[in-house]
Amino acid sequence: MKKAILLLSGGLDSATTLAIMKSRGYEVYAISFSYGQRHSIELEVAKNVAKDLSVKEHKIIDINMRSFGGSALTDDIDVPKDRDMEDEQIPITYVPARNTIFLSFALAYAEVVGTFDIFIGANVLDYSGYPDCRPEYLQAFEDMANLATKATVEGQGKIKIHAPLIELSKSEIIKKGLELGVDYANTISCYDPSPEGKSCGHCDSCQLRIKGFADNGMSDPVFGGVSG
Amino acid sequence: MKKAILLLSGGLDSATTLAIMKSRGYEVYAISFSYGQRHSIELEVAKNVAKDLSVKEHKIIDINMRSFGGSALTDDIDVPKDRDMEDEQIPITYVPARNTIFLSFALAYAEVVGTFDIFIGANVLDYSGYPDCRPEYLQAFEDMANLATKATVEGQGKIKIHAPLIELSKSEIIKKGLELGVDYANTISCYDPSPEGKSCGHCDSCQLRIKGFADNGMSDPVFGGVSG
Repeated sequence: MKKAILLLSGGLDSATTLAIMKSRGYEVYAISFSYGQRHSIELEVAKNVAKDLSVKEHKIIDINMRSFGGSALTDDIDVPKDRDMEDEQIPITYVPARNTIFLSFALAYAEVVGTFDIFIGANVLDYSGYPDCRPEYLQAFEDMANLATKATVEGQGKIKIHAPLIELSKSEIIKKGLELGVDYANTISCYDPSPEGKSCGHCDSCQLRIKGFADNGMSDPVFGGVSG
Repeated sequence: MKKAILLLSGGLDSATTLAIMKSRGYEVYAISFSYGQRHSIELEVAKNVAKDLSVKEHKIIDINMRSFGGSALTDDIDVPKDRDMEDEQIPITYVPARNTIFLSFALAYAEVVGTFDIFIGANVLDYSGYPDCRPEYLQAFEDMANLATKATVEGQGKIKIHAPLIELSKSEIIKKGLELGVDYANTISCYDPSPEGKSCGHCDSCQLRIKGFADNGMSDPVFGGVSG
């Protein structure tokens, strides 16, 4: 069975990516991060998603990015609500070098597991404008990774960063996931959930989800009392 | 004052790099990692080096790379002793994606501090053959970094990975450091020190150091009873 690594957050995008990997026959090694995020409820959700979708192994890595701060997700800065998503500025929810750090750990994990395939749920149509979600960034990471490890330099294989959602709209991602049987009631995307894990409905991430479900003629199941 | 980030291990190379940075007028923000290394004594040494050479700030980041294993430095695998250093194979002391992970954190730190300069003590003449110490790797990391962060994408500056020792032999590195007043008795490079912090004298890292001092007509001060 083909092995692959997945960056798993417990959100809509990574859950859909996991379903896509399973449909393509991968044995999935998932990795999540406790990085000091205010929405740490996502780790509990990630564990459930990993279990529901039968990943082979799920590692949760502890890294305290609060020691740097500099983001509304890891510092005492308010998460923007009802922000105009057409605004092209990178919002304060950006976390410095987050995907670079996450993908670096995924690279180590891949080498130890013995695979060269790393999946990430990044997408650039309906997103917050984070630089480390763009295709040109992911390509540069892949190029660097192929010079970085013993396994690649010795010619055992070539690292491939897979981003199967990269050009999909949120609506298309949800449509794809529903076809594959993803239960989105069991995911969480909110940047600023209540202590009980209830999504706020107003941060960028909630706004994008709600619109994505609306475009599919549905309401977001996280607001249906199922998981909130 | 110009700010810059330094990956600081407490070893000979990073201590020399720090002295070079100070001589060039940088205000230094040092970052070290508690990554599950068997030679964790290096963190205590790193703290002393940081203090002696008056860094502005020193962050120690906790990341448990033992949860991956796969290296003699982070797993229950013997560190090779008196290895033939002409052997071109990458040795078992290689830690998967270590510099990629370290540099990723340095990139986050740089963005929060507001600098674009990152220093690393990597060198490719007298070293263990690790792929993530080579100039082509460091260049690829720099290229990736410039697509990764808010600060670079918004055009506030361009990340530069500085490796001032990259083409120096161990002997030349030591000569440079002695000129700049580095007290090498207060550094440690050993991969497998005793619990009291005594260097083994036989791992790759000890072998390279001993030869470097010998080439300068000296004996390595860590074996002089000063720090052992």
